Amino acid sequence: MNVKRKGLFITLEGGEGSGKTSVIHELGKELEAHGIPYITTREPGGIKIAEKIRETILNPAHTEMDGRTEALLYAAARAQHLAEKVEPALANGITVLCDRFIDSSLAYQGYARGLGINEVLSINLFATAGRFPDLTYYLDIEPEVGLSRIAAGEGREINRLDLEDLSFHYKVKEGYEIVKSMYPERIRSVDASGTREEVAALIRDRLAADLKDFGV
Amino acid sequence: MNVKRKGLFITLEGGEGSGKTSVIHELGKELEAHGIPYITTREPGGIKIAEKIRETILNPAHTEMDGRTEALLYAAARAQHLAEKVEPALANGITVLCDRFIDSSLAYQGYARGLGINEVLSINLFATAGRFPDLTYYLDIEPEVGLSRIAAGEGREINRLDLEDLSFHYKVKEGYEIVKSMYPERIRSVDASGTREEVAALIRDRLAADLKDFGV
Repeated sequence: MNVKRKGLFITLEGGEGSGKTSVIHELGKELEAHGIPYITTREPGGIKIAEKIRETILNPAHTEMDGRTEALLYAAARAQHLAEKVEPALANGITVLCDRFIDSSLAYQGYARGLGINEVLSINLFATAGRFPDLTYYLDIEPEVGLSRIAAGEGREINRLDLEDLSFHYKVKEGYEIVKSMYPERIRSVDASGTREEVAALIRDRLAADLKDFGV
Repeated sequence: MNVKRKGLFITLEGGEGSGKTSVIHELGKELEAHGIPYITTREPGGIKIAEKIRETILNPAHTEMDGRTEALLYAAARAQHLAEKVEPALANGITVLCDRFIDSSLAYQGYARGLGINEVLSINLFATAGRFPDLTYYLDIEPEVGLSRIAAGEGREINRLDLEDLSFHYKVKEGYEIVKSMYPERIRSVDASGTREEVAALIRDRLAADLKDFGV
């Protein structure tokens, strides 16, 4: 038999400034060490249509955006990115490391914006045709710590979501706790409060152990 | 008591070239004759965010768009247009004439593109928070007749959807038949095969009768 092994679909989740970008880099190094082919991506993912959608979502001039519109746009960008980039990679035996996926929508739109986790789940089940990640790392950090990292210039530019008040970011964290309790097998918490080096060591050990569990 | 009467929400549906624009004009004249304040709109409706979304949907360069992405984008534009324009008008006692609404998504994406009418309904129930039109006129016409009207230059520019083959437009018509059977009270068929003048007379009579039924 020569059945090609499908790639693993691994997603990274966490609040603003939780260090996802740096952690994805470390996960990539660990996959390389195991000789596992992979790509890293995040939701617009260089997919032209999804990039256009993300421009609409993140435009700071669009402060009047309805919460339902936002949730549907995230779901639309997800559907396109999944169909054009993620599914073809997985089918070719390539592991995919993805910065944010369905859980972000459940925590941000479903819980923090009050649209309802189950309601947002329903539009996302449509968007993904039922595809879930094999494994999700949730980078657990206090909102103040994450936001202070961004304010200190460690990372990307500030966008519209960063301008929400602190209570919103606490609601996001509560939302993630609920989502974790919905998918305890898939979502694994990682303490992201340490230095970059500490978190790097932690996450590489976790991935090495998890790969063993998946028989990779 | 001085309770302000809510406006009626009236939508127009039909295949390409079925004459919705002209019919909306006639409906407006009939409402005027009854002294009923109204606005006419169609889904991006001059709403900035929804216009951006529609640009993404109709861009002829986006031929690789996934069907789920398209359905979610229509739902997103609908949510924003409804929240910013339709709901405020209805609340102020203004009748809304809207060119296409939820039934277009059910017929085009749900049925003709094969995504499933119930699946597309579920994302649209999210988008509209359960709001349905009070009354929907479906302009019934054979696809060849509608497309030949467009080819003859009677109306708007040709867009990406017009380029689909004829069997797609037949599927749209089948989809509308199913959707009509789901909402027999709300959706009323109008024979749109006549001349502009014939259809105009027909639709104005129908609206006058329907307004009586609604006690307006």
